[in-house]
Amino acid sequence: MLTTVYLIAITAEAMSGALAAGRRNMDMFGVALIAFLTALGGGTVRDVLLGNFPVTWTQHPPYIYLTVSAGLLTMVVARFMHRLQRLFLILDAMGLVAFTIIGCNVALKLDYSLPVVVMAGIITGIFGGILRDILCNQTPQVLCHELYASVSLLVALLYLTLLHFGVNESVTMLAAFSVGLAMRLAAIRWRWSLPVFSYAPERWQS
Amino acid sequence: MLTTVYLIAITAEAMSGALAAGRRNMDMFGVALIAFLTALGGGTVRDVLLGNFPVTWTQHPPYIYLTVSAGLLTMVVARFMHRLQRLFLILDAMGLVAFTIIGCNVALKLDYSLPVVVMAGIITGIFGGILRDILCNQTPQVLCHELYASVSLLVALLYLTLLHFGVNESVTMLAAFSVGLAMRLAAIRWRWSLPVFSYAPERWQS
Amino acid sequence: MLTTVYLIAITAEAMSGALAAGRRNMDMFGVALIAFLTALGGGTVRDVLLGNFPVTWTQHPPYIYLTVSAGLLTMVVARFMHRLQRLFLILDAMGLVAFTIIGCNVALKLDYSLPVVVMAGIITGIFGGILRDILCNQTPQVLCHELYASVSLLVALLYLTLLHFGVNESVTMLAAFSVGLAMRLAAIRWRWSLPVFSYAPERWQS
Repeated sequence: MLTTVYLIAITAEAMSGALAAGRRNMDMFGVALIAFLTALGGGTVRDVLLGNFPVTWTQHPPYIYLTVSAGLLTMVVARFMHRLQRLFLILDAMGLVAFTIIGCNVALKLDYSLPVVVMAGIITGIFGGILRDILCNQTPQVLCHELYASVSLLVALLYLTLLHFGVNESVTMLAAFSVGLAMRLAAIRWRWSLPVFSYAPERWQS
Repeated sequence: MLTTVYLIAITAEAMSGALAAGRRNMDMFGVALIAFLTALGGGTVRDVLLGNFPVTWTQHPPYIYLTVSAGLLTMVVARFMHRLQRLFLILDAMGLVAFTIIGCNVALKLDYSLPVVVMAGIITGIFGGILRDILCNQTPQVLCHELYASVSLLVALLYLTLLHFGVNESVTMLAAFSVGLAMRLAAIRWRWSLPVFSYAPERWQS
Repeated sequence: MLTTVYLIAITAEAMSGALAAGRRNMDMFGVALIAFLTALGGGTVRDVLLGNFPVTWTQHPPYIYLTVSAGLLTMVVARFMHRLQRLFLILDAMGLVAFTIIGCNVALKLDYSLPVVVMAGIITGIFGGILRDILCNQTPQVLCHELYASVSLLVALLYLTLLHFGVNESVTMLAAFSVGLAMRLAAIRWRWSLPVFSYAPERWQS
């Protein structure tokens, strides 16, 4: 099940990347690259940081084709996509949660300590979007928005807690997935957000 | 021959990096760092992604000296460089093509699958310029411009196709190099470009 | 002693990261992430480039807690921090110098050649600040400012020169640390800076 969700998720992330590239008037190639990077960048950063070589997507060429195609397709269907905005937010939320669980699993298998496992989950969940925003020259949205990255943190913590108490792996995954998805959707619906830190000094220099 | 072209190319890339740093009023150190990163960043990203340690430039200190010197020299000669604009575009095109071929070769030697080999070629070809633009806080030019990154893709595909059909390696290299260079120069001359994706939604949020 | 200085330094760097995040109106999560990245990003980039896996902070969870806590604490105390500006600049200078020495040591232990050791020191010293500025969507300050990154270069060179001439390791460390700190503080006090390269062409395109 997680694999199906994963494939849907990287497609949705690739399309969100393509839209961001379109806002910067990139050409077809730029669109394809940003799509690829948004979808697979989080896992890539995780693999590199954990020393988990070869990097996952290098062993799964279909992931490359899927994300690049989704990006290019977006150029054609973009004008109709505002009608699908709600669907998209749901797919993106599924992606965030699925990526986080997958990231935790990778770090667990490599025997990293729990805090690192949590970090690996978060990095997998949010770094695709961060790389997209860096390449599109804007402040990463996932660090400003309504509850987004923190959903990733909560999913990771819940997942590891359930595993720790010996709960069956499938049940754990389903629970973490459902709670995370519900939370993200609730955050969108009721505009939940974390306290924002606004700092505007007059003459301070860091 | 590829080595000579490579040395010329990293020098040209370092100088283009230095000019970009100058547009951001960086100091001498910043100029040197951006020059280094523009010239050797593509290969570094490739090596890290492919798990190809030690990273190439760490085994070739002269590459460090060459790129840093080229960057600093640029501070002195910048005022005369607009006369050499045409020469520069040619050197940059040579670099793009040479980097791509070298990147493909590195991935081939590590036994990666063909799609990954193509990606390795492209990453080596264009990521130096992308890192330069990220550090200079602008949207990566190579993803917007006339046919640039796509030349890298075509060179990689041509190179691998010829190798696949058993064409002699030197001939393959020369053919890929010439075709790629010709294509990039033609793209500059006649302003060839890929379709651009301009997306300006009014109320859409990704 | 270096460990104590290191802990003080990553705390100071985390707080500087948090302030930068606050200037971009990030939420609590963004503040924590930027704090973590500013403090530990330089060492992470160094470890990845040198192939030094596992990356240092993955083996020291307390570093994660310390930097994240320091970042969150900053949200509370930020309004009083302008009074501590001078203290902060000193802590930041200590961090720059300590990070550089630590970076050189890591590369020395991995038997890299001297130019790479110097680069490893500089990367450890300045890349946390560079990553902070990239994520906060501004041109890296350490490449523009008064003598900053170049202090890192000088510390690395001094450290390696003294080691080369067989000076006792503790003495070497103390000397490099003191000279580096003095130099950075002098640079702040008397606004020393490197020549700046300002390049503003009218019609040139790189």
